[in-house]
Amino acid sequence: MLRLLKLDIPDEGVPLQNLIDDCSLTLKHQVKTGHPRFFNQLSCGLDIVSMAGEWLTATANTNMFTYEIAPVFILMENVVLTKMREIIGWKGGDSIFAPGGSISNMYAFLAARHKMFPGYKEQGLHSIKGQLVMYTSNQSHYSVKSCASVCGLGTDNCVDVPSDERGRMIPSELERLILERKSKGHIPFFVTATAGTTVLGAFDPINEIADICEKYKMWLHIDAAWGGGLLLSRKYRHPRLDGIERANSVTWNPHKLMGTLLQCSTIHFRENGLLISCNQMSAEYLFMQDKLYDIQYDTGDKVIQCGRHNDVFKLWLQWRAKGNEGFEKHMDHLMELSEYMVEKIKASPDKYYLILEPEMVNVSFWYVPKRLRNIPHSPKRAESLGQITPVLKGKMMEVGTLMVGYQPLNELPNFFRNIISSAAVTKEDVDFLLSELDRLGQDL
Amino acid sequence: MLRLLKLDIPDEGVPLQNLIDDCSLTLKHQVKTGHPRFFNQLSCGLDIVSMAGEWLTATANTNMFTYEIAPVFILMENVVLTKMREIIGWKGGDSIFAPGGSISNMYAFLAARHKMFPGYKEQGLHSIKGQLVMYTSNQSHYSVKSCASVCGLGTDNCVDVPSDERGRMIPSELERLILERKSKGHIPFFVTATAGTTVLGAFDPINEIADICEKYKMWLHIDAAWGGGLLLSRKYRHPRLDGIERANSVTWNPHKLMGTLLQCSTIHFRENGLLISCNQMSAEYLFMQDKLYDIQYDTGDKVIQCGRHNDVFKLWLQWRAKGNEGFEKHMDHLMELSEYMVEKIKASPDKYYLILEPEMVNVSFWYVPKRLRNIPHSPKRAESLGQITPVLKGKMMEVGTLMVGYQPLNELPNFFRNIISSAAVTKEDVDFLLSELDRLGQDL
Repeated sequence: MLRLLKLDIPDEGVPLQNLIDDCSLTLKHQVKTGHPRFFNQLSCGLDIVSMAGEWLTATANTNMFTYEIAPVFILMENVVLTKMREIIGWKGGDSIFAPGGSISNMYAFLAARHKMFPGYKEQGLHSIKGQLVMYTSNQSHYSVKSCASVCGLGTDNCVDVPSDERGRMIPSELERLILERKSKGHIPFFVTATAGTTVLGAFDPINEIADICEKYKMWLHIDAAWGGGLLLSRKYRHPRLDGIERANSVTWNPHKLMGTLLQCSTIHFRENGLLISCNQMSAEYLFMQDKLYDIQYDTGDKVIQCGRHNDVFKLWLQWRAKGNEGFEKHMDHLMELSEYMVEKIKASPDKYYLILEPEMVNVSFWYVPKRLRNIPHSPKRAESLGQITPVLKGKMMEVGTLMVGYQPLNELPNFFRNIISSAAVTKEDVDFLLSELDRLGQDL
Repeated sequence: MLRLLKLDIPDEGVPLQNLIDDCSLTLKHQVKTGHPRFFNQLSCGLDIVSMAGEWLTATANTNMFTYEIAPVFILMENVVLTKMREIIGWKGGDSIFAPGGSISNMYAFLAARHKMFPGYKEQGLHSIKGQLVMYTSNQSHYSVKSCASVCGLGTDNCVDVPSDERGRMIPSELERLILERKSKGHIPFFVTATAGTTVLGAFDPINEIADICEKYKMWLHIDAAWGGGLLLSRKYRHPRLDGIERANSVTWNPHKLMGTLLQCSTIHFRENGLLISCNQMSAEYLFMQDKLYDIQYDTGDKVIQCGRHNDVFKLWLQWRAKGNEGFEKHMDHLMELSEYMVEKIKASPDKYYLILEPEMVNVSFWYVPKRLRNIPHSPKRAESLGQITPVLKGKMMEVGTLMVGYQPLNELPNFFRNIISSAAVTKEDVDFLLSELDRLGQDL
């Protein structure tokens, strides 16, 4: 790749034609994430309206910390975020756009810590007697553990709760682990439930977890970065996201299932006022009290970032174009295509081994080459299938006809996790995907 | 503003023509940050090549966590970040793009804590006996204090070091405050020096601070988010940034003085390997060890964000277009224009009161209306000038001819802080700025 590109930075600028060649070469060798046969990541596809929005955003080139320099975009944030909270099921509350789901999850942690231990902001950990403890399932996104490290708890105090065979947190295990830490004098205070896990697309049982959080007076955060988009579908939001309105905070990334351009992540709070009281540093040079407009529109003091990229316009424009109905159709379409894929896999059990019946657009399976067909499944066979998976991925990338991600999970060796989250995917693409795997892999 | 716009999200999508009207209305009512008479923020202007880069970035719509899905952009990051470290004065080391200077500063803090107290990542604060303490000047960016809050130290353990009349940290005060905390059994471990403060554009004396950090075995971080661009000018980097190569880490935001589109922020480390050992969570689904390419190119496990926006292409393309020489000319031009502005202000001491001789493109001054001219300066007069400042700002915004920021600072009431960081500014714009203030403000 380094030989194909010319990446050096010259002393003297290069002429316009070279820049155009640079752009063309970059697009040529870059992965085509907008292609309907790119099934590799949670963010796939290229929504053209959202792209136009991002182009305008670039052209307007402003920062989101004050109303003064981003009046239109700040008002748009209010409209879009209020709408999203309504869809969650809240009146009031507060929200903000953040640079990715990991930082969104961190905002939830910070608000919870501040709400429950207000001395922490100034005095830090020494304001509390006892060890704070947080909980999340062993299938949750690794940013939850990362947050424990960043914010000073240490990853040992982010407890992994076991999940069932479908990848969903087991509430009784959560309660057992809370009691275990309490018996040591620790302070369990924060639970992250996942709505749409990264690998399996599993939904933790929110209502049962919310009961436990209420019982032990803990903060319930829902990481719906991935699954949040299904809130837009009347059909598919139940039962998956039932109870989400009981959470204290929700992460929801439009840049995933909704197809908004990268990055577009949001964090929502049921209670208003926490973001500002938690994160406010009252920088006098930006957030003066004697301004000529209503300073409640200055969002900068609510965030840990100071400058903040404009991530709203591309989503707002896309939502205007699609309407609520358009997004609902989009979600239903993605789910139906995934169901179609599952049916196709089940119809050829010799060639494809379905790992579990998915709740979402993550379809987990092994491809089975000829030599491993018609023999009973066993850990040994799974191991062989796991060895084939990266080899087949390599063949895909060499021929360049499709991309599907793979990973191991707990005891399961490497398997494919196919994602249908691009609006461009059709049934024909799903058919192609399965037959192409067979073409490339049957003799492995 | 709400009456001028149509922001609602409809059930049914709106037709294309409405979307075009939406875009046009948005641009019409949005602040023109690219206009040469927008002097309001550290990020001003609109570099057209960088904008083209951001358009391509949007079109390529990918994530930066693995080489697999962003091969070209990951290689570009390597080239650009290596170049920036060379300019700082380092061979080797490591760097990453982060969403803004505040998060960049936080990366430095996290790496320092991890390097000096490796048990922290897993065990948190209880791995250490004694209170960690960090230091920064009372003129530094508020993100440093915010980091103390987020990461669990508490803002009380982020010590403000007094600065001199020019806004520069006083090294002897730093040493005194280190000894004061040490005498209490605390553990001073981290100093953030600022190269280009937000309000005054002051440069902390790096060499003297580095001596103290070496003496007490503390990590030295330089927040050069604002002033870092001057590293590209042989003339202006000295003496301001002398000693920067002695730092352990450096924040440098191309989206400020270099005019790269928002956002583009970088954090650099003298030592290689810290980012990965500090932030690695080893998510199996992304960072498998059995990939078909050299996994050192997977950057995702170095960061706390998982998904990461592509912020390199707009900078790389811009640098290719300008070359090193073009950036040097750009820096020299901005500094010369600021010097010109200072000269103009000094030439009319009746109308403009220069608050200090600046080290950078921040020009701090009061406008003096007729009724306050020809009387000796006093705290009372300063107070009157401070009252006029927001009123004059309001008049600017009403007529819409220019924008200049203002703020109070310590004992100083509100004063203008003019920023020349847009390549579009000419001497005529500076002339206009000063005469327009006089036109709007003389009778206040």
